[in-house]
Amino acid sequence: MAQERRPVPPCRGAGTQPGAALGSGLPPAPARPPSREIRACPGSGTGRGRRRLRRALGAVASGGDAARRAGKKEPVLRGTLEEPLPRSCRRLRQSPERCLCLPFPGQRRRGAERRRFPGRVLAGPFATMNLGDLGAEVIKVERPGYGQTGPVVQRGGYDSIAAAVSGLMHITGHEDGEPVRPGVAMTDLATGLYTYGAIMAGLLQRYKTGKGLHIDCNLLSTQVACLTHVAANYLNCKIEAKRWGTAHGSIVPYQAFKTKDGYIVVGAGNDHQFVTVCKILNLPEVSKDSRYKTNTLRVQNRKELIDILSTRFSEKATIEWLQLFEGSGVPYGPINNMQQVFSDPQVLHNGLVMEMNHPTAGKIAVPGPGVRYSEFAMSHPKPPPLVGQHTVEILKSVLGYEDDAIEELLCTGAVAQHEVR
Amino acid sequence: MAQERRPVPPCRGAGTQPGAALGSGLPPAPARPPSREIRACPGSGTGRGRRRLRRALGAVASGGDAARRAGKKEPVLRGTLEEPLPRSCRRLRQSPERCLCLPFPGQRRRGAERRRFPGRVLAGPFATMNLGDLGAEVIKVERPGYGQTGPVVQRGGYDSIAAAVSGLMHITGHEDGEPVRPGVAMTDLATGLYTYGAIMAGLLQRYKTGKGLHIDCNLLSTQVACLTHVAANYLNCKIEAKRWGTAHGSIVPYQAFKTKDGYIVVGAGNDHQFVTVCKILNLPEVSKDSRYKTNTLRVQNRKELIDILSTRFSEKATIEWLQLFEGSGVPYGPINNMQQVFSDPQVLHNGLVMEMNHPTAGKIAVPGPGVRYSEFAMSHPKPPPLVGQHTVEILKSVLGYEDDAIEELLCTGAVAQHEVR
Repeated sequence: MAQERRPVPPCRGAGTQPGAALGSGLPPAPARPPSREIRACPGSGTGRGRRRLRRALGAVASGGDAARRAGKKEPVLRGTLEEPLPRSCRRLRQSPERCLCLPFPGQRRRGAERRRFPGRVLAGPFATMNLGDLGAEVIKVERPGYGQTGPVVQRGGYDSIAAAVSGLMHITGHEDGEPVRPGVAMTDLATGLYTYGAIMAGLLQRYKTGKGLHIDCNLLSTQVACLTHVAANYLNCKIEAKRWGTAHGSIVPYQAFKTKDGYIVVGAGNDHQFVTVCKILNLPEVSKDSRYKTNTLRVQNRKELIDILSTRFSEKATIEWLQLFEGSGVPYGPINNMQQVFSDPQVLHNGLVMEMNHPTAGKIAVPGPGVRYSEFAMSHPKPPPLVGQHTVEILKSVLGYEDDAIEELLCTGAVAQHEVR
Repeated sequence: MAQERRPVPPCRGAGTQPGAALGSGLPPAPARPPSREIRACPGSGTGRGRRRLRRALGAVASGGDAARRAGKKEPVLRGTLEEPLPRSCRRLRQSPERCLCLPFPGQRRRGAERRRFPGRVLAGPFATMNLGDLGAEVIKVERPGYGQTGPVVQRGGYDSIAAAVSGLMHITGHEDGEPVRPGVAMTDLATGLYTYGAIMAGLLQRYKTGKGLHIDCNLLSTQVACLTHVAANYLNCKIEAKRWGTAHGSIVPYQAFKTKDGYIVVGAGNDHQFVTVCKILNLPEVSKDSRYKTNTLRVQNRKELIDILSTRFSEKATIEWLQLFEGSGVPYGPINNMQQVFSDPQVLHNGLVMEMNHPTAGKIAVPGPGVRYSEFAMSHPKPPPLVGQHTVEILKSVLGYEDDAIEELLCTGAVAQHEVR
């Protein structure tokens, strides 16, 4: 592991000749099985050397939008070779294991944003390639905002815009209030998860057929697919969707209640659970009230009932209610803030905080992942690579270049190696 | 395809002898590769016949919570053999292609809910089985609320509760308002997508090793993993999360604005885009104002700037703004309701409305899926099966039972066939 918090050394070869021809006189890269570990950032390119690289590399992920580079530099990651990281640390979870650095031939065309960081070359020859050019075994993934074709195909992909156009914002928010966006980019994340499954399915297909394929995931399609019952209600019954706050359209009570010092979510999935809720709240007269006997009646008399329950919930602190509901069989839970989430015994038990040493930022922590397999343990988490951290390693071990050829590529600025010490 | 909107015929053999011993005297089912098409609902069971079925069946999904059975019957699916469908139509997208019907030995133990539907036997012997019992090739998936082990492992899994405990509700809502839940069960959906990728990864692993495995996904872990930058900000910098409405914490403007008749989301990912936004809004003085020159300044002076922009946006209808922003390069989009989503040209172009004929409900439509592959077309969408619709077919073609053995199983009530006509 590299030392911590050192000043970033200059990048060998990076950006010196951004337009230099690639790989002239080099032996062709031997064919290798595609690797999923390598990132090449989006861009375009021509030339024999690049074509060789293209052929030899595997699954390709295209890059993100400008929002990813906005905002303050991430405090714990300041000083990496990459573009200024968003405050988000998001890259920490999205990065591949290794990173190859090529010059970015479209640098000038990318305008002011690129010109501001002339030494920070981010390259990748894949974005404009067809599957055929990439080789028959390659699994190519595209994940734009709207799709590969169609009336608005040229528009960029942004979580907020997709959440708006897909209707997710329309249905999120208080009943009488304005639309809201989920507090994290759930549309973006769901698209990533959809893509992850699709890549696995593509790899499975390749195992069976020996052939690669092109996968099309996009933000709009993902979020529309995730509208589930809200969409089905409209498509089949022309029931227009509405906002419900934290409540449920057809189960009452099933929502958040304000307590003395926070919020608790409580649901009564059936009449028996409703009686239990009333017992815990010490409201026996409510459970006997003929207006609230069944869920159908409770949906009809939602407002009066929720008013009664809300008043009662506001009289005790969240921790008191949690103790009272424990073991009751009723679905319940507090609305946690981050401090509470990351001190929750079950969150800690599930191993959801991953710590790792970053080459320049030192010890960092990120959440997840949310899946475990019985037959293999989680590998030790690795920090995101610096741009060009694995250039020589990839050229040698994945692409099969000899040392002198790699040296030539570095000297001409065709590739760059970030020298982590 | 079955005729439409017929009354549901009785189910042969269903529920007549719920506790009957299975498969006595029958030849053992031949070994077959596991199938992913078959659903068996959760429950428990013993007996030789069941063990045979267990061995021969493949990936297993456990069932949902009580919320799934609450609310009104789904209007377009009334009359199917299954438990009353939620208004959601959710099952339409979650169902497998074929359905085998076995008796449910835990019927009495499941209490009132099960007793209400004595003829509606839903069975499945998998929920309490260990991987070893299921056979070495099986991929077993568990998807509870909190995980396989840990302090609150016994609690049920509910989207709303997981969204609360994981902090998603804490960060969703208006800046000065109360917490909100995303308008669809995004935690549930993200867990489903995580699980789908994990199953694909498990199948890939089985291709490589010949061995099955046990996959653990759960709602809490999924949503905590999906907290991304919000979690990383807390874990690394102890920055507590807050609610942002539709806005972005570090990009201004990047949020929804109220128009004369709706909402539009507009973002300025960089200073150039901000100038464009001001030009479209006919606010040249704002783009020249030194308080709003850079994004950092705009974040500092967020309130004043958003007030100015909001006033201007409220002066025209959404459609007028959409026309003005078209081709500007600025991220923008309307907040659509369901009617607008499902008449959006790109949504229609992406083929996101899937129509199909349901055996009892007639023509129905559901959204999705959100992924396409170059090497194979979407198969014609199939409606969810009725419970027991494919019992004989599966016993014969998957499990290799002879006709007379199947007849015996049906006669004793060990299995049931829904006779779709």
